[in-house]
Amino acid sequence: MKLEHIGIAVKDLNISNEIFEKLLGKEPYKEESVSSEGVRTSFFSAGESKIELVGSEKNGSAIEKYLEKNREGIHHLAFGVDNLEKEIERLKNEGFIFINETPKLGADNKRIVFLHPKSTNGVLVELCEDVK
Amino acid sequence: MKLEHIGIAVKDLNISNEIFEKLLGKEPYKEESVSSEGVRTSFFSAGESKIELVGSEKNGSAIEKYLEKNREGIHHLAFGVDNLEKEIERLKNEGFIFINETPKLGADNKRIVFLHPKSTNGVLVELCEDVK
Repeated sequence: MKLEHIGIAVKDLNISNEIFEKLLGKEPYKEESVSSEGVRTSFFSAGESKIELVGSEKNGSAIEKYLEKNREGIHHLAFGVDNLEKEIERLKNEGFIFINETPKLGADNKRIVFLHPKSTNGVLVELCEDVK
Repeated sequence: MKLEHIGIAVKDLNISNEIFEKLLGKEPYKEESVSSEGVRTSFFSAGESKIELVGSEKNGSAIEKYLEKNREGIHHLAFGVDNLEKEIERLKNEGFIFINETPKLGADNKRIVFLHPKSTNGVLVELCEDVK
């Protein structure tokens, strides 16, 4: 598994794009809406890994609900895997709890699942695999 | 700037090492105490980036204080830079606020500074440079 990206929950994607442009000294290389999640995302390259800013663009989205209870900040870690079903099976056998076991379509043309933070030391973990 | 590591605050390094061993399917490649911070750390490779688990080993350490107010979870993002002083200067000019502007010795033989989360969208950002 390699660290594919870090997801950061933001209230206003335009404002946060500016902050991260200044911080990283570069512009996001793309922006993308993810209809399945009701979010709009932007991506910055940071070596092999990416920074993904995630803002809500639909009432009731998971990110909107997250930001009602939490401050803006790091939201999840995503690990890239080559065989998503095999990893899900391996991690279920290890006792990890999934938020969704059936992969859904995420940003950046990936199939994704989330593990519940209660089984991963408080960290919301995404596993992602490129759609072939 | 590339994403060098993700720091995760944990209460018990041994318990968390086990969780991340199962999650990542590998053991930490090293453990190290950082006396300047009063912490003990362990490192897992995850592609080009690393996962650093950070537990307190000294009363009153920053991580101990953090865990009095916050749950275990992602604590900071660290970006590797080639010229730390130049980046500090650049980011000061961009208006970012530093927790410490004078580099201190961190884990993994690095000189480190931290930016304050209030200027970085709620994200505690570390900049690090290999000690030459």
